[in-house]
Amino acid sequence: MLPFDGKKLQGLMEEAGLDVLLASTRHNVRYLTGGYYFHFHVVATRIGQSQYLPIVGIPRERIGDAFYVGRPDEEGQIQETGLWITERLGAARGTRPAAAAAAEAIRRVGLARARIGVEMPFLPADAFLCLQRELPEAHFADATPALDGLRAVKTPAELARLRSVYDSLADAMQAAFAGGHPGITTSEIAERVRQETTARGLTFLWAFTAAGPGTLRAPSQARWERGRILHIDAGGEAEDYLADICRMGCQGEPSSLARDLHAACLAVQERMRKLVRAGVPCRDVLLEGARAVREHRYAAFGHFVAHGIGMVSHEQPDISSGNLRPLEAGNVLSIETEFIHPEVGHVKIEDAVAVAETGCEGLGDAGREWHVVAD
Amino acid sequence: MLPFDGKKLQGLMEEAGLDVLLASTRHNVRYLTGGYYFHFHVVATRIGQSQYLPIVGIPRERIGDAFYVGRPDEEGQIQETGLWITERLGAARGTRPAAAAAAEAIRRVGLARARIGVEMPFLPADAFLCLQRELPEAHFADATPALDGLRAVKTPAELARLRSVYDSLADAMQAAFAGGHPGITTSEIAERVRQETTARGLTFLWAFTAAGPGTLRAPSQARWERGRILHIDAGGEAEDYLADICRMGCQGEPSSLARDLHAACLAVQERMRKLVRAGVPCRDVLLEGARAVREHRYAAFGHFVAHGIGMVSHEQPDISSGNLRPLEAGNVLSIETEFIHPEVGHVKIEDAVAVAETGCEGLGDAGREWHVVAD
Repeated sequence: MLPFDGKKLQGLMEEAGLDVLLASTRHNVRYLTGGYYFHFHVVATRIGQSQYLPIVGIPRERIGDAFYVGRPDEEGQIQETGLWITERLGAARGTRPAAAAAAEAIRRVGLARARIGVEMPFLPADAFLCLQRELPEAHFADATPALDGLRAVKTPAELARLRSVYDSLADAMQAAFAGGHPGITTSEIAERVRQETTARGLTFLWAFTAAGPGTLRAPSQARWERGRILHIDAGGEAEDYLADICRMGCQGEPSSLARDLHAACLAVQERMRKLVRAGVPCRDVLLEGARAVREHRYAAFGHFVAHGIGMVSHEQPDISSGNLRPLEAGNVLSIETEFIHPEVGHVKIEDAVAVAETGCEGLGDAGREWHVVAD
Repeated sequence: MLPFDGKKLQGLMEEAGLDVLLASTRHNVRYLTGGYYFHFHVVATRIGQSQYLPIVGIPRERIGDAFYVGRPDEEGQIQETGLWITERLGAARGTRPAAAAAAEAIRRVGLARARIGVEMPFLPADAFLCLQRELPEAHFADATPALDGLRAVKTPAELARLRSVYDSLADAMQAAFAGGHPGITTSEIAERVRQETTARGLTFLWAFTAAGPGTLRAPSQARWERGRILHIDAGGEAEDYLADICRMGCQGEPSSLARDLHAACLAVQERMRKLVRAGVPCRDVLLEGARAVREHRYAAFGHFVAHGIGMVSHEQPDISSGNLRPLEAGNVLSIETEFIHPEVGHVKIEDAVAVAETGCEGLGDAGREWHVVAD
């Protein structure tokens, strides 16, 4: 059985005019294989004067003729974990041998003159040129939007995984706040987030850290001092499913202004949760969020944004003023409300919701209140 | 002052026929900037339907006219950490805006008809096509070998950093062995390596794990049982400087055959250390290692390989039978000796040495003996 919606992929490929798909990014290889990726190169991609390049090839009309190009030495792992794609080609190390093997596989399935979808913003230039050279009668187009569309609606299993990643990240961030002491640098805070996310089985992705009243978000030698706020806006993932959360802390009690701004963030977030459900146009999410911020007395300092999230941050659905398409059940949105005030610093709450038919469900909601660190 | 050897880069670019260099990989951006990289995208590169693409541009004859293409929102971090490149261009999100900005910068310095070196196995295809379109009179070539050559000789500061990464990784691996108990799976061992490397400030890269007498090296549900050996062949890095080590453990005392094979590995490694020094042809390292394995009574099960290491595994120097170039002081070699025996499993020691004028220095040598886990 396919680990993805084959009919949906066929439809998206047809819309995009693609006869065959060559997916080569880690997240899309995992999506299309049902979770497989060669463990050696999950983190370390470069080797020698080139890099690891796995390729999943899927002919639109004959998904069963799919092929996988990898390294010969990953076959042991494939045998162990299983892979629905039985046609496997081992290629010598590097990008060009992988591309040459994919071209050979495409010729074998009779698609040398086909329209081939590749991930243009990711496929290495030399692999692309090799495909062009090896398949001079083929046409190439970007398959990134089709793959983005394929992943837009999450299955219950994917939602369960995202829920787990969000819960772990929210928990890790609380632990990171708890270890804060007056004078700790934002670099030290970021490293604490890295340790706490790793300890919970996640891969650390990033930690923006802004110690008020400063607004520098990059981890630095800036210190989180008594009476000051800190925001941590962090990302973590497990097997390419990611979470992205922002939470607030304070050394001692936050000022009433800081409390007002934080309460405003939560109020906007809550208003969005009342709105979000299947069928609501994407545009309305943005308009309603912007309106909610505009109505606040500190509107001049406020900003609202929302974006799809899953295996990619800012994946579909696209929450923009030009997108009239409705939300679908199984979409996941990251919703961000922030106020940047010169006396307080950067106050921000970012949360995710899974869209359902009749409403939405918050993911990883722990710790949205102030995390007050007592002396 | 430049954070790299400008004269050497000019020489390598001249040899490669390059008038201007566009470096875009994380390791080379860090190398050329002296350590800078936008923290948000160190791990998570993809965003939306594209990915983060920073570009360091260096005109060969006017290094002072170097430019940096990044995201507008990384300027805060740059201000904080400093960057010798004063010409900075902010580009909208994604690969093509970054490429377009680099093309604009190249036009500004009057090099629109120049020979441009890009990292062909890494530069995204759409960014490459954008550069070609924006600079129709330019010629493009692969700059990867020149950058590989630039990094081949490590400075004392780089050696100190590598020494520290190797020491931390060796220590982490000992801790991972120590937590092994009869019946632990190799997946659990690999996760322990991830935790222990992270706890020591490193980024975990990979952990091959082979529980004897099996030879599957991918972490799996295979169990490490009483009386059996385990090899852990792991990688870790700090700011793109990586370590790669293999160590042996056993649940209880290893068999005399296992001990023989391990002793053979160490004997080969020691023989290589007596050989390695500046001036020795790279080929001789491979030939002497192969000879040392061949002379052992279990030669039929043995294998020897060596490769340069630093910011990339298998970087220069290239230890192959066709390479007559001499080792240079400041080269770093990873040296691997292994015996795969059906009764025992996969016995392997991998170590690194820094090449000096009169010999070599082992990096991260802790734990080369058996790590015996007592019941």
